[in-house]
Formats: sequence, structure tokens, C-alpha cells
Amino acid sequence: MDKITVSIITIGDELLIGQTIDTNSAWMAQQLNGMGIWVHRRVAIGDVREDILSTLAEEAALSDVVLMTGGLGPTADDITKPTLCEYFQTRLVQDRETLQRVLYMFESRGLPILQRNVDQSLVPEAATVIPNERGTAPGMWFEKDGKIYVSMPGVPHEMKGIMENYVLPRLEMHFSTPAVVHHTLITSGMGESFVAERLVDFEAKLPPHIKLAYLPSYSLLKLRLTAHGKDKLSTATELSMYFTELKERLADIVVIDQDISMGEVLGRILLARNRTVGTAESCTGGLIGSWITAISGSSSYYKGGAITYSNEMKMKMLGVKKETLAAHGAVSEETVREMLAGALDLLEVDYAMAISGIMGPTGGSEEKPVGTVWIAVGSQEKTVTIKYTLRYDRERNTQMAAVYAMNELRKLILELEPEGLN
Amino acid sequence: MDKITVSIITIGDELLIGQTIDTNSAWMAQQLNGMGIWVHRRVAIGDVREDILSTLAEEAALSDVVLMTGGLGPTADDITKPTLCEYFQTRLVQDRETLQRVLYMFESRGLPILQRNVDQSLVPEAATVIPNERGTAPGMWFEKDGKIYVSMPGVPHEMKGIMENYVLPRLEMHFSTPAVVHHTLITSGMGESFVAERLVDFEAKLPPHIKLAYLPSYSLLKLRLTAHGKDKLSTATELSMYFTELKERLADIVVIDQDISMGEVLGRILLARNRTVGTAESCTGGLIGSWITAISGSSSYYKGGAITYSNEMKMKMLGVKKETLAAHGAVSEETVREMLAGALDLLEVDYAMAISGIMGPTGGSEEKPVGTVWIAVGSQEKTVTIKYTLRYDRERNTQMAAVYAMNELRKLILELEPEGLN
Repeated sequence: MDKITVSIITIGDELLIGQTIDTNSAWMAQQLNGMGIWVHRRVAIGDVREDILSTLAEEAALSDVVLMTGGLGPTADDITKPTLCEYFQTRLVQDRETLQRVLYMFESRGLPILQRNVDQSLVPEAATVIPNERGTAPGMWFEKDGKIYVSMPGVPHEMKGIMENYVLPRLEMHFSTPAVVHHTLITSGMGESFVAERLVDFEAKLPPHIKLAYLPSYSLLKLRLTAHGKDKLSTATELSMYFTELKERLADIVVIDQDISMGEVLGRILLARNRTVGTAESCTGGLIGSWITAISGSSSYYKGGAITYSNEMKMKMLGVKKETLAAHGAVSEETVREMLAGALDLLEVDYAMAISGIMGPTGGSEEKPVGTVWIAVGSQEKTVTIKYTLRYDRERNTQMAAVYAMNELRKLILELEPEGLN
Repeated sequence: MDKITVSIITIGDELLIGQTIDTNSAWMAQQLNGMGIWVHRRVAIGDVREDILSTLAEEAALSDVVLMTGGLGPTADDITKPTLCEYFQTRLVQDRETLQRVLYMFESRGLPILQRNVDQSLVPEAATVIPNERGTAPGMWFEKDGKIYVSMPGVPHEMKGIMENYVLPRLEMHFSTPAVVHHTLITSGMGESFVAERLVDFEAKLPPHIKLAYLPSYSLLKLRLTAHGKDKLSTATELSMYFTELKERLADIVVIDQDISMGEVLGRILLARNRTVGTAESCTGGLIGSWITAISGSSSYYKGGAITYSNEMKMKMLGVKKETLAAHGAVSEETVREMLAGALDLLEVDYAMAISGIMGPTGGSEEKPVGTVWIAVGSQEKTVTIKYTLRYDRERNTQMAAVYAMNELRKLILELEPEGLN
């Protein structure tokens, strides 16, 4: 089967000195993969003429399509366009439509226009200009020696607009793409090696065009099945047979059979049961709330939360007793239990989560080392408390604690209300 | 000047299909850069024997050091170690120390040990084994034809431990590294092209070994000056002259002269003034609280917050009047003003932020389109309200709104209390 292959080149010193994390490539790969195009190489290089020239040639030799992002800003570190002219043996010309768009954007915001903004409408003559509806630097499509090259700005939302409106549809028309189908199962509560042990004979019988990958993610484990085939329908049908078996084999540890966030998992469960939820966060400082509300439509089940970072606020907002804090401390089963009860009352919700812990790097003691986290989840009917001892840095401890709390609540809701979506 | 160059190779299909965002490379590049080693290429490839072999050869031809992450898990998709054996013409042998470590980790957690865990102690004979104190897969150091290769697991905190404890010190000993110095200035309130226009003559007089880069980041603009030189002290001295001039030229729009988060900027300002802060969040759902508390030590100035996602909670927790919501809606100047007043009272803090908006993709109207955000920041003494109209997706709108709110509060504190750190 003929795979269509893509190289992604990201241009910019900021990616090489680590000042910027590259989220563009992951998004691009997801989109391309969904239509059966395989990103087999991603290369990041600096704003260096020679490196751009050699990398373009190398990647074009290895791939059918070369997608570039970055190096197209209005400021002086832009060397990408002249280098593209050199590579494609062409010259810069002014694109009238881009110029009009730039002029309009500046006028409508009441900003004066500068020469460097006007210069954004200069494009290599050999390029097909792709309008950028979200910014001033246009995208550019080139074809040379049977290969396709696309240059796009590095600003994520501008790149996404250009990809969605133009590049993806045009690539789909250009190639008759093969079928690639993924299914992802999210599990919790069992380590990678133990899950793998349970799947030895399942893996052994997978045909060569179906692959299983293990992807640990915070406290969860994602299992991804990928099938390649000629025809979308038959490939998807075959994959879903194996995926169903996988789900059945791991039924006791399955969280969800889709690659969605824990915020979305919890939201769907609440929506299906017409229940509401609230949060009482100390150590996570609002992270759980922000993850829940990252889902559009969450206002129909999330009422709000109390971020009680100080003891005073635990008492004032959630009614935690002074004596409880004095006797057991802020990071204790007793305190999160009272936080939970207070959150259920204050927020008038069916379910709530309460969390208090020591995220580090300071603040630990012998009795309660850094990483100690107490979680309480529940309803007026039933409360579950659990203690975790996390062993990572502040950021990762906080994220893991948030995932644990949401997963505990998920399990409790399914236990109390087993009917319906899970 | 002889640059020491590094290629980073990340191995794993999950990076190519976009399921995982690569944060490892950015961290590694930062660390290497700090010691004057230049990452000039980053390549991501899949779990494919031929691709690993050819990429190792290509990158070793271009760089002094090749750092690899990924492909070392306990599950069956591991093909990295056999491929390394092939590349270095060696065979797998058992490493006694790694075996002991693996056995100990499983025993101490009361877990049974599986053959695939034992196999993690198999390493290529030609490798110097690097202990992994945070996991079971060891790192491996190879030298061949004058080049250095290091293979590490892809789990970020395991990779970081191996880099910090072993790889970075050993690279520093191996090379006499040149000096690379960075300084970053963060500005707000002026677009990239206008800042660049103000800096035309400044840029023109920069010597060739000092570069200025523009890095837009949410609603902020980062300006990074980088100097390369032989000697750390003289390079740093020269750079700081230019950096001081840059700061002075942009004094009216400077946020901070370091590359730190807005949460840290705000925290330092509050700490220096011995002031406290609280949050009243609707549309950001706890994100501002989570950014503030991401900073270790934030408990000394952050007391807590109210996440009032529903109108009921805006009234109950913050005392927003029913009539205000009825007359002006939840996303209005009047509502955020009352949210702010309520937050100052409830949280008993010196300063607070209140925010309410429509983050999309649904919920907009003709009068209040998606992206409409009202922010109020202030103290009992003074309140500032401001409206933004954001034009991005839900995630980006939320992040930008949070940065705007924190930046508005920063400006107000500096206006009310100009003495001391800013």
C-alpha cells in the first residue's frame, strides 16, 4: 500500500533554545493522520539560510509533502521568504489581495500602517498564495519536481486556519489517500507492564497492519490501536472488532473508549445523568475547575468552585472547623471531608470534589512529605476519601492530583448511578 | 568560534500522529543552551527500525552530540534497543545494577515482577549505563567515531533526572563550551511590527554575534537578545549593555526583564509589597488561580478564589445583585464590578481580579459576540474595568483573558504603589 508521507519543518530559533514548545506539529499530525496521510518526520531548525535550504532538499527527497511553519513574522528576523525564493529559483512580487487584507486589518483597528506590514504582501512569484484570514502573513503553496511544499506562519491559530480552509482540502483532492484508523482506550489503576502482560496473546494475534501502542498519560494509560488499509470502511470494520475485544479484556480498568480529556469524560457522565458538580480546591488552585470548564457546554453541569488556598478560606468559604485544622492539619482526611461537605452545601451541587495536598518543592515534613495529597469526592449520600503520595515536581504532582480526583469522582458516580453512559 | 552542536531525536509514533506534544525537546534545549551548547536540529521519527538507523547516521554526520528520547518502555512496541545494537554493532547484555534497581522498585511497591520488567535491564554491551533513579528504563551513553550518542526514556521526569544527574555534567566535562547568553524582555500593549519599528536603529547597530528575536506569546511580546562569545563574563557584560538600552527604549511597555510567567511576575510584585490577592473567575473557570498557585510560595500572597460559573454562585458567593444580572447580564461591566467588590470582601485580600466572558464556540449574541470579556481589577481604594473582544478559539480566548486580567492588575498595583520592585 502506498503511503503518502509528510515532513513537517518548523523554523525558528525559539524552538531550538526551548523558549517555545511546539504544539503546531502535534495538531498538524492529528489532522493529516485523520485523512490517512502519514507524518513520518518532524524537523526543527533555526533561522539560518543554509539550514533551511538543505533541510528543504533533504525532506523533499524523503517525503511527498513538506509543510513548513514559522519564519514569516513582520519583524527583521524573517529570512524565510528570501530563502524560499532562492530554493524555488524565483523572486518576490507583491500580492495585491494580501496587500488589501493587510491594509484593511490595520485600518479597521485604527492602527497606522508600516512598511514592514506592507512587505508582508511580498510573496515568491512561484507560489500560490493562501489567504490568511487570521493574520497578515499569507500561506504559500509550491510544487516542484512532483513534490508539494507549503509555508505557513508559526502562530498556531493562523496556521490552523490556513490548514483547515485550504491545505487539508487541497491535499485530499491531490492524493487518493489510503485509510488509517485509530481507536484509543483509556485505562486507570494498572501499570503499563501489567496491562501488557494481560494482552500478550491479544497482541500476538494482531495482523501486521494493526498496531497496539501504550501511551502513559499522567496517572492514566492510553492504549491506541491503529489500522492501515486501502479502504476506509473495511479497515474501520476490522479495527473495531479488535477494539471491542480489547475493551472487553480490560473492562475492569477502562475509563473511556475515546481519546478525550478527563474533563470531557466527567462532563458526559454528569450530563447523561442530569447531575451537577462543584469543586473545593486547595493545592490544585483552580486547575480542576479550569479543566472542567475547558469543555464547551460545561455550564450546564458545573456550578462553580471554592479555591481555598489559605486555612482562613477553608473555614470561611467551606465551613472547615478550626479544631479540625488544628488537630489534623490542612492536608488530612478530616479536612478534605469537611471541605467536601462544605462544597456540597455552598455550591448546591449533586457531586463535589475536595483536594488538599503538598505539591512541593517546599512545605513537606517527615509525617507529611512533599507529594502527600488527600482527596474527598462524593454526594450527600456517600463520600470516598483517598490519600496519594506523588513523587514528581510541583507541576506534575498538581496535574496528577487533579486527574486522580476527577477519576475517583467518575468511579463513584458510576457506582451510585450505574445506568446510562459511562 | 567553534559551536558544539546537538541533534535531538525523539522516537515514537505518538509524536507523529499528534497524540503527544513534545515538551522534552524544549526543556533539553534550554538546559543545553544555558551551557553554550547549540541544538541546531530536532527530528521526530516513528518506531521504525530503518528510520531510526538512517536518522542516527544523518544526525551524527551533522552534529557533535545526538540525544535520543523515547522507545524504551516495558511494552512490546520497544524496538529501540535492538536497533541501537545494530547501529553500534553490539549485543544486548544484562546490567546487574539496573536489574537490582528494577527488582527493588517492584518489591518496595509490593508488585509482582514480570519478565518484561526484568528485560529492562538488558542493555547494549557497548553502552555506558546511566542509572534512572525515577523509573525502570536506564539511560545509555555511546561514543562512536568521535560522536556522542545518548538514549533516554521519553517519560519527561525520568529524562530530566538522567540529564541533570549525568548527561549535562558529563557533556560539560567533555567539551570546553563557548558562551551563549540570553536576556528576555517581556512587553505588553504594542504589536510586533510597531515595536520593531521603534527598534530599527537599535537592531542596525547590533554586532553580528548578538541577535534580537521577537516572540509573541498570548497577549504579550517577548524580545530575546542572544550573544555568542568565547568567554562567558565578557559576553554577558557586552550583552547586558545592549539589554539595558533595550529596556530603556521600551520602558513604557515593559512588563518584566526576565522570561518568567505572568503568575510569577504578579507574585513578585505582591511579595515585595506584602500584599495579598484573590480571584473571582467565571469564564476562566479557575485558570488564573491555577497559574498563580503554580508558583511555589504563592500561599504567602494568594488567599483563594471563587469560581462562579453560574449566576446563582455569582450572587451567593460574591453578592452580585439579581437586578444587575437581569439588567446587564453576566458578561457586563456592572457584573464584574460587583464580582470584584464581593471578592475583596469574601477573600479579605488587598487586591482582586474578576472576570466574566463568552469563550465560545457557542453562547455569543449580536450584542455580545463570542470573545467578549469583561475584567475588573482593583482594591477597596480603586477599581479598573476593561472590555476585550477576543477572536480565537475557546482555549486561546481563555488563556488570553487570564493574561490580560493579571496584566491589568499588575499595572494598577504599580500605579498605586510605585515604590519597590516592578
